[in-house]
Amino acid sequence: MKRYWNLLQERLERLRANKVFETFVIGVIIASALLIGAKTYEEASRFDRILHWLDLGVTLFFLFEIIVRMAAEKRLLNFFRSGWNIFDFVIVVASLVPINDSEMVLVARLLRVFRVLRLVSMIPELRILLAALVKSIPRMGYVALLMFIIFYIYAAIGSFMFNAVDPVLWGNISIAMLTLFRVATFEDWTDVMYATMEVYPYSWVFYLTFIFLTAFVFLNMMIGIVLDVMQKESEAEQLESGQGEAAEVHWMRERMVQMGEQLDRMERQLEQSARRQD
Amino acid sequence: MKRYWNLLQERLERLRANKVFETFVIGVIIASALLIGAKTYEEASRFDRILHWLDLGVTLFFLFEIIVRMAAEKRLLNFFRSGWNIFDFVIVVASLVPINDSEMVLVARLLRVFRVLRLVSMIPELRILLAALVKSIPRMGYVALLMFIIFYIYAAIGSFMFNAVDPVLWGNISIAMLTLFRVATFEDWTDVMYATMEVYPYSWVFYLTFIFLTAFVFLNMMIGIVLDVMQKESEAEQLESGQGEAAEVHWMRERMVQMGEQLDRMERQLEQSARRQD
Amino acid sequence: MKRYWNLLQERLERLRANKVFETFVIGVIIASALLIGAKTYEEASRFDRILHWLDLGVTLFFLFEIIVRMAAEKRLLNFFRSGWNIFDFVIVVASLVPINDSEMVLVARLLRVFRVLRLVSMIPELRILLAALVKSIPRMGYVALLMFIIFYIYAAIGSFMFNAVDPVLWGNISIAMLTLFRVATFEDWTDVMYATMEVYPYSWVFYLTFIFLTAFVFLNMMIGIVLDVMQKESEAEQLESGQGEAAEVHWMRERMVQMGEQLDRMERQLEQSARRQD
Amino acid sequence: MKRYWNLLQERLERLRANKVFETFVIGVIIASALLIGAKTYEEASRFDRILHWLDLGVTLFFLFEIIVRMAAEKRLLNFFRSGWNIFDFVIVVASLVPINDSEMVLVARLLRVFRVLRLVSMIPELRILLAALVKSIPRMGYVALLMFIIFYIYAAIGSFMFNAVDPVLWGNISIAMLTLFRVATFEDWTDVMYATMEVYPYSWVFYLTFIFLTAFVFLNMMIGIVLDVMQKESEAEQLESGQGEAAEVHWMRERMVQMGEQLDRMERQLEQSARRQD
Repeated sequence: MKRYWNLLQERLERLRANKVFETFVIGVIIASALLIGAKTYEEASRFDRILHWLDLGVTLFFLFEIIVRMAAEKRLLNFFRSGWNIFDFVIVVASLVPINDSEMVLVARLLRVFRVLRLVSMIPELRILLAALVKSIPRMGYVALLMFIIFYIYAAIGSFMFNAVDPVLWGNISIAMLTLFRVATFEDWTDVMYATMEVYPYSWVFYLTFIFLTAFVFLNMMIGIVLDVMQKESEAEQLESGQGEAAEVHWMRERMVQMGEQLDRMERQLEQSARRQD
Repeated sequence: MKRYWNLLQERLERLRANKVFETFVIGVIIASALLIGAKTYEEASRFDRILHWLDLGVTLFFLFEIIVRMAAEKRLLNFFRSGWNIFDFVIVVASLVPINDSEMVLVARLLRVFRVLRLVSMIPELRILLAALVKSIPRMGYVALLMFIIFYIYAAIGSFMFNAVDPVLWGNISIAMLTLFRVATFEDWTDVMYATMEVYPYSWVFYLTFIFLTAFVFLNMMIGIVLDVMQKESEAEQLESGQGEAAEVHWMRERMVQMGEQLDRMERQLEQSARRQD
Repeated sequence: MKRYWNLLQERLERLRANKVFETFVIGVIIASALLIGAKTYEEASRFDRILHWLDLGVTLFFLFEIIVRMAAEKRLLNFFRSGWNIFDFVIVVASLVPINDSEMVLVARLLRVFRVLRLVSMIPELRILLAALVKSIPRMGYVALLMFIIFYIYAAIGSFMFNAVDPVLWGNISIAMLTLFRVATFEDWTDVMYATMEVYPYSWVFYLTFIFLTAFVFLNMMIGIVLDVMQKESEAEQLESGQGEAAEVHWMRERMVQMGEQLDRMERQLEQSARRQD
Repeated sequence: MKRYWNLLQERLERLRANKVFETFVIGVIIASALLIGAKTYEEASRFDRILHWLDLGVTLFFLFEIIVRMAAEKRLLNFFRSGWNIFDFVIVVASLVPINDSEMVLVARLLRVFRVLRLVSMIPELRILLAALVKSIPRMGYVALLMFIIFYIYAAIGSFMFNAVDPVLWGNISIAMLTLFRVATFEDWTDVMYATMEVYPYSWVFYLTFIFLTAFVFLNMMIGIVLDVMQKESEAEQLESGQGEAAEVHWMRERMVQMGEQLDRMERQLEQSARRQD
């Protein structure tokens, strides 16, 4: 029994690593994405039956593929060590739950949409890109907090002052924050300003300071963080490939330590020969 | 008497440095921020009494906290050496002033809003962020002046030429500057242009040169300044941590001075041994 | 016969390399561009005859010029090795096809428009610029794919949820993607949001997460790629010109290898002299 | 006579270099700017007389100041060697021309507006900023040309195809270019697109490719150029001040040449001593 299992597992492992199989999986993911897109067209109702069967086919194939990948692991626990595997597992299992309740149809549809994200987990280049993005998130956290504080203060002032002018835009602090986000994207912000300027002629100070502050903080921080992350990554990459300025500097530094030792040896010999000459 | 005071001061100092106490203070600041937000909701009028008592509680706690921090200093003057302490002090004292006058209610509310800024003074990471921002302000001063001159000149020309077309947008130089700021943010700027183009068909030259000039100056300057500030900071950070290219170059430079001295010593010995051989 | 041909070819080659001839070709391209522009004016119909003859003249000159360039090559195949030559050839030949069919007039006109692109193939500086642009395309491919996945997922969700609210904006997945592109450019995006917020009050989450995600990915990636490409190019340029930091570091690295060898030689001599002294 | 003139010239030179005098000139320039601004207010008509006399005072003071600066030069020709001096001279002389013709009033006013630019010529920091800006213009020339070609081609296509849809936006090639510039600034660009999509459903391809192309070229080029100019300037500044990574690398390079020579000397001595030992 055990022997057959090992043999099967070896074959599954070879199947999982197979380039053709991988490409086929990517193909099925794209097909499932197109299926989702097709359903949004009105004309699709005519092909409802076909779409349903295709959808079932995709679901079953995904189930098969994830079982292959799980069985190919020596220990099942290893499979759940990768975040991407867990993500794939949840997406596949969740779409297996039978949904009869008409209210849950939307949830089922959304789940199918998230299948498209499996493209990211399948293509290594996208996974690297995403990892680089995720790396810059923690540093952005405090910037986001600072931005939130600026938004909160301006929203509080705005909803105290301009509530009477236009409750639709300044009704309470959360509506005011949405309005301020609109101002920050320059989206018809002058309409908002002109309305309040009729009651408070100097309210342009409110908008201009807000725009300058958010633009200043945002530009300064974002460019700074992106630059910093990129510079470190590019330096790390240069060191790894052994090419570029950073790599040459690093090589020189290491070479210099050796040269220093060599000079020490030579100086000692010179001193010895001097002592011998005396 | 003096002994009791010293004992108390020591305890207060320990309290101030206590992580739990710090976290609790941050919690109270956030609570006070939520309180301010809650008041902007219409439904809040039902809980007016509770909100009033909570507000009083926050005010008293802030008073208590600032007294703790002041008493914990060996000399009271040290407390006022930090700009952030003065800021905290003003915010807390100002909110203690009893306000009966209905006209002053708005001022009192705004004061409470600024309490949220105490978050920045409490969280060290935000204080560092802000310090970095403040550092890039002086260099931006002259850029801002140049931008202001460009705006002023275009606003003067605009209000001379287009005053008759639309006095709401070009009535006087300050209104014209606001209109130009709107154009610079691309906010319905074609509406402004099409209106003047009906009278002056070539007025698009005015808008296009303005947009190119401001975009050119802004992009060039801002990116330049941000890059420069970031680069210097990243270099300083590398030197401090002793890692990265800048640190390696610095290490090499210092090492090279030593090697130079060693080579000098060796050359002198070689010369001496040559002289001795003669 | 062969001799005459060789003589002619030599002359044509000299003509092709002639600076005056090159400038004249650029002049004709600009004239052909102005011709195309002139035709878009209504008043141009009066000069229809002249414009027609001028157009014919430009077409014939382009034919002459391309024949010169083809004849100047030793082997005709060499001519078709350059992408720009193929581009020029297609443009010239296609505009020779006689068009009587009134429906094809538009195609003929568009072909004449693309003649302006010949400016890029004629001015070396523009060719270098374009080559630099093209070089950064492959790295942008995966970023574009990631952006497309984000757009696709949001478009699918949007067309499922908001189809009933406004079929003009969310009718099917491709319309929804166009609407999302509009949101990403901040073009009246609040109108789109306010409409769906009336039915789904929390739909601002959809828009805000979308804006943050696309802005975050776009900023991070684009700045990163542009910086990286620029840095590598600037380093390569410095190494070539032998000036700037990267060039100095490279020089030092090479010099250090030599110094290392010299030190090895010196150490060996010191050891030998030590052995001899014993 | 000559002696008195030399004495006067010396005094004028001292006056020109006087910090108080310089500050006073800047003050007068600002006053003249405020004067121009004041005239744009309707209420200014009451103070017409005062404004007129103030304006005359500013004009005369500027005349006096430029005569001082011209007389302070040893040779008058030296004065006209600086572009800024020529600029100042033209502004001052032009505002002296008496204008009775009511049609020329606008020209006179504009001339007075340009006086504000004298601020740039008076404040050295602004002059440096402007010089840095001007330095990056030549490199932007070819990028601007490439952008113009893209605009021209799209405008030609647009005015051929969409002329019938909306002649106000696509009437001829220059109007179409203005419309495209509007699209490039994202200013109500969907309105333009939706209008043409009703006739040509696939015209979104036109707009999307245009936006991607211009954004791609603009971002790539501008960031690249700004970065490159900044990097070179920062490196030059580091070398001058002798601080920072670039300066350290430069110092090391020079030091390495010396060390190489020292090593050569030492090797020669070692060889000689070896020869002597034999």
